[in-house]
Amino acid sequence: MLNRRNFIRNTAITTLATLSIPELVTTTFAAEKVKKIQLQKDDIILFQGDSITDWGRNHTETKPNNTSMLGSGYTLIAATHLLTQYPKNKFQIYNRGVSGNKVFQLAERWDAECLNFKPNVLSIMVGVNDFWHTLTNGYTGTINTYRDDYKKLIDRTKQALPDVKLILGEPFLAKGVRPEEKNWYPKFNEYRLVAREVADTYHATFIPYQSIMDDAQKLVPGTYWTSDGVHPTVAGAGLMAQAWLETVKA
Amino acid sequence: MLNRRNFIRNTAITTLATLSIPELVTTTFAAEKVKKIQLQKDDIILFQGDSITDWGRNHTETKPNNTSMLGSGYTLIAATHLLTQYPKNKFQIYNRGVSGNKVFQLAERWDAECLNFKPNVLSIMVGVNDFWHTLTNGYTGTINTYRDDYKKLIDRTKQALPDVKLILGEPFLAKGVRPEEKNWYPKFNEYRLVAREVADTYHATFIPYQSIMDDAQKLVPGTYWTSDGVHPTVAGAGLMAQAWLETVKA
Repeated sequence: MLNRRNFIRNTAITTLATLSIPELVTTTFAAEKVKKIQLQKDDIILFQGDSITDWGRNHTETKPNNTSMLGSGYTLIAATHLLTQYPKNKFQIYNRGVSGNKVFQLAERWDAECLNFKPNVLSIMVGVNDFWHTLTNGYTGTINTYRDDYKKLIDRTKQALPDVKLILGEPFLAKGVRPEEKNWYPKFNEYRLVAREVADTYHATFIPYQSIMDDAQKLVPGTYWTSDGVHPTVAGAGLMAQAWLETVKA
Repeated sequence: MLNRRNFIRNTAITTLATLSIPELVTTTFAAEKVKKIQLQKDDIILFQGDSITDWGRNHTETKPNNTSMLGSGYTLIAATHLLTQYPKNKFQIYNRGVSGNKVFQLAERWDAECLNFKPNVLSIMVGVNDFWHTLTNGYTGTINTYRDDYKKLIDRTKQALPDVKLILGEPFLAKGVRPEEKNWYPKFNEYRLVAREVADTYHATFIPYQSIMDDAQKLVPGTYWTSDGVHPTVAGAGLMAQAWLETVKA
């Protein structure tokens, strides 16, 4: 975090505001020293998470690389890029995000909807509901529940798939969108830090979506990137996909 | 066509096969001297066409830049790029493609679903059903029906919207995918040529999707890019979006 903080402190907002979106993403990734994953031919790539990943996918469609299975969020945009640009790599890309999921709900379906796929690359984006549902759904899990559940999930994953390449996405909230935003802080920040801590612990690639979103909000307000602070618009999904694609090379 | 033919004649297939997809698209566009459209701030961009454009959109959703309204085909991929990369341009992007449509069916809904939008940029991808339905649906329209209907539609459009920037997509068939492919030739080629003729007549930007598809098939077979020769896979939608985006600058 120090590197990033220094970087932001030394960069005038006016400078960031003149950067293009690809430049913003590259700049954030450089400041955060994000580790790139080398994709291989025939890689099985699995996207897991909550509604942000699920995004209207058909839960009964099981074939890889299929539009309705992939949904129409950042997963589809990232998958489309990989499938279009690297046709000879024969990637098999799956989306198994489920709306509303918290970490313990990923765990409940992990054998069938993750480990059995034997993914080479596993991308997980989870955590916003682990916090949000404490405000809205009477969920009683704490930050320690989130940390413990997340670490247990990754332990179990590494046990079954020792060579899996992990990409963990930071839970984020676009600022100035939700009327009750103040209820999210400072508590929600702990969930972001724990996601980063889990990534560090397991040497996973971490996508700093909050930094990306904060930077993108220097160009246009958070309502452009998300409908409600949490759920991305088309532009927000494109921004997430751009960040996701920055974590891999093929 | 001559330029393109010469280019292909002078370019070894082995060379094309080593090009990346963006290079293939750029090369095809250069060979065809495709005219780029300059997008402006606040542009209203409308996608019209058949199932390839429609692609699972929610027909009751009317708001611009909305995922479910945009569907999940090339329209969504192209729109996502424009909305993500040019947030300050405040584009309003609409999809009003309808599965199964031929040109006369676009005409039937043209006031409500095109002219009333007053688009600054209008992209039309139509023609495969004007031919295909003569084989499968007892449609009796001929190549002259297609030409006359298409020219009448564009005349009417230019009358109502003299400054509209037009992008017309070439109907295409991926080769080696459909068992009854031989029934498509040579007749189907005339539909491609007429789409090009209409674009030339009205100084519209023409997207040579057939050339793009033919080139992409030098990398991997047509089944990678389309499910049935006509309908794009995720990779095929990405390829179309890449070609579409090559026609504009912002």
